[in-house]
Amino acid sequence: MSALLAATTTAAQQSTGETIVFWVCAIVAVGGGSVIDTAKAVNLYTTYPPDDFLDYVNAPIGKAKPIPGPLKPLIAIPTTAGTGSETTGVSIFDLTEMHAKTGIANRRLKPTIGLLDPDNTRTMPPQVAASSGLDILSHAIESFTALPYSARPRPERPALRPAYQGSNPISDIWSIEALRIVNRCLVRAVEDPGDDEARAQMILAASYAGVGFGNAGVHLPHGMSYPVSGNVKSYRAPGYPADHALVPHGMSVILNAPAVFRFTASASPARHLQAAEALGATITGVHQADAGKLLSDRIIWFMDRLRVPNGLSAIGYGSADIPALVEGTLPQHRVTKLSPRPAGPDELARLFEDAMTAW
Amino acid sequence: MSALLAATTTAAQQSTGETIVFWVCAIVAVGGGSVIDTAKAVNLYTTYPPDDFLDYVNAPIGKAKPIPGPLKPLIAIPTTAGTGSETTGVSIFDLTEMHAKTGIANRRLKPTIGLLDPDNTRTMPPQVAASSGLDILSHAIESFTALPYSARPRPERPALRPAYQGSNPISDIWSIEALRIVNRCLVRAVEDPGDDEARAQMILAASYAGVGFGNAGVHLPHGMSYPVSGNVKSYRAPGYPADHALVPHGMSVILNAPAVFRFTASASPARHLQAAEALGATITGVHQADAGKLLSDRIIWFMDRLRVPNGLSAIGYGSADIPALVEGTLPQHRVTKLSPRPAGPDELARLFEDAMTAW
Repeated sequence: MSALLAATTTAAQQSTGETIVFWVCAIVAVGGGSVIDTAKAVNLYTTYPPDDFLDYVNAPIGKAKPIPGPLKPLIAIPTTAGTGSETTGVSIFDLTEMHAKTGIANRRLKPTIGLLDPDNTRTMPPQVAASSGLDILSHAIESFTALPYSARPRPERPALRPAYQGSNPISDIWSIEALRIVNRCLVRAVEDPGDDEARAQMILAASYAGVGFGNAGVHLPHGMSYPVSGNVKSYRAPGYPADHALVPHGMSVILNAPAVFRFTASASPARHLQAAEALGATITGVHQADAGKLLSDRIIWFMDRLRVPNGLSAIGYGSADIPALVEGTLPQHRVTKLSPRPAGPDELARLFEDAMTAW
Repeated sequence: MSALLAATTTAAQQSTGETIVFWVCAIVAVGGGSVIDTAKAVNLYTTYPPDDFLDYVNAPIGKAKPIPGPLKPLIAIPTTAGTGSETTGVSIFDLTEMHAKTGIANRRLKPTIGLLDPDNTRTMPPQVAASSGLDILSHAIESFTALPYSARPRPERPALRPAYQGSNPISDIWSIEALRIVNRCLVRAVEDPGDDEARAQMILAASYAGVGFGNAGVHLPHGMSYPVSGNVKSYRAPGYPADHALVPHGMSVILNAPAVFRFTASASPARHLQAAEALGATITGVHQADAGKLLSDRIIWFMDRLRVPNGLSAIGYGSADIPALVEGTLPQHRVTKLSPRPAGPDELARLFEDAMTAW
């Protein structure tokens, strides 16, 4: 490695003050999800420059062209506990002309190795710990409740399978265990940054959930989050850089989550109950018809306790914004198609309306 | 794949009547652990023929030379629910001149893909379902109780890490979940071969435990099982081919397990209790000093219920055999060094003595 260190280096400064350093032969990403995802894209675009920027980007926004060969080694060192990006083949970015996030999904993007050291999350502001931790929570529930792999259209040959397979017995293990850790440790890690055990567990939970959703996929809360982030007007999140409007990723996801799970529960009430139980809810005697409410109430408990804004209206959205939010969600096929219950424009509009106020 | 099928083929007939077919370009192994392990060795020895047969074999029995490059694609299709070999980089075989099993351990041996289809275990004789299922049970407890990765000597550089890392937070997930499935489904799968759900869960549990022990490692029950298999005199197992003496692998392992876990529990009582709980024992109010007994009693319950012989004495061993059994265990460093409590010749002799009668 020391030989590589001596090679030409370049440093890219992110808006959040985090740094990616990359070399000719390998890339080391030290930061949160946006940094690691940027490093994946840098790896791809410098190794196989495309004719058009959108060539590799998920269809229908881009052409979803396959990556032609192996990429350079990428070492991911997360400094937040949320993204799980160190485990996935997905790179998400803002496509500013669309006011929405989109991404590139390909197994070849997966980092070669991830180094999880809870000392690297010790100085996270509590708001970052909360937002990124709630991202874990939603990753895990979404992948656990995603359309089962056996219910997805079967591709013509295995090589054509998408990165996101739908929920399956391998991903399930990671998703449920991540929820158990979130239940035990998220509040502790946010409220006491000196709680080393809780922080260590949360960085592990982020990777657990990453392996879960990196194979099963996420669905509506993430699909709906991309336009919530992209259409932000003036909201500035405490604990984040104050120089521009920003909805932290985990916040943009969790604000949609209660409405979504109330909507999806009828498709698989038992799974929604299992998720609620892993998150600490008592499910004995609960009717399946109440599964969505039970799970959502538990999520809302975490949101309230961690001082997340009370719904989309609290970060500046109103009913007039719903058409733009729906329009930004519809092209996110990669994830919206994994919803256990189909959601077209009407359903999405109702979900955004329902997400305006959480409690 | 059809092009490959047209290439030169060879078929090797195993003693158990299972078949491996291999081609110049890829290998497909259809069978139990011995078949898949043999396919791994065939892949290695035909791709990089060694100067001496023992070059690749685990030290100190062989030279443990690294595998020089990638092997051919290997597709593993298990027809038993036990081995987990479809997930591991380990190939175990009988070294007849030593009267013991030993093996080759290298990540490059890992099958490219495993195809788990519970229809392939439908015709297993119940005794094979029992023995292979008890192998899963022991894989999972051994990897969960193995010396923690953080307590092992740190290798000079990561490339020198052994295949078996010691128990760790990734393997733990698989091991515990495998135990939960074994508790729910093993007896059902053995007693009713038509119970499709139980059989499907058990073949999944075999792979779960395989991922667990394939990274964490197994320890004394497996290390001690190799001479138990290798020194067999006249025991013939019901449900297995009757033409030669044979102790089925899972049986040779589980016969040692209760004695071992009574011995190792003092090193990590909490972990032994967790394993017992995942296997269905009630641990509330149990003292840590009783962890080994509780776990072993639960294992013995399964052994008794599944009609496993009552200890090593029931398959023809006596006190006079103990020196040979100890001698066959001592060189199995790869696994014995993972015991959470060190076991030299004296401890091993006492463990074999204790394993003579189970209940």
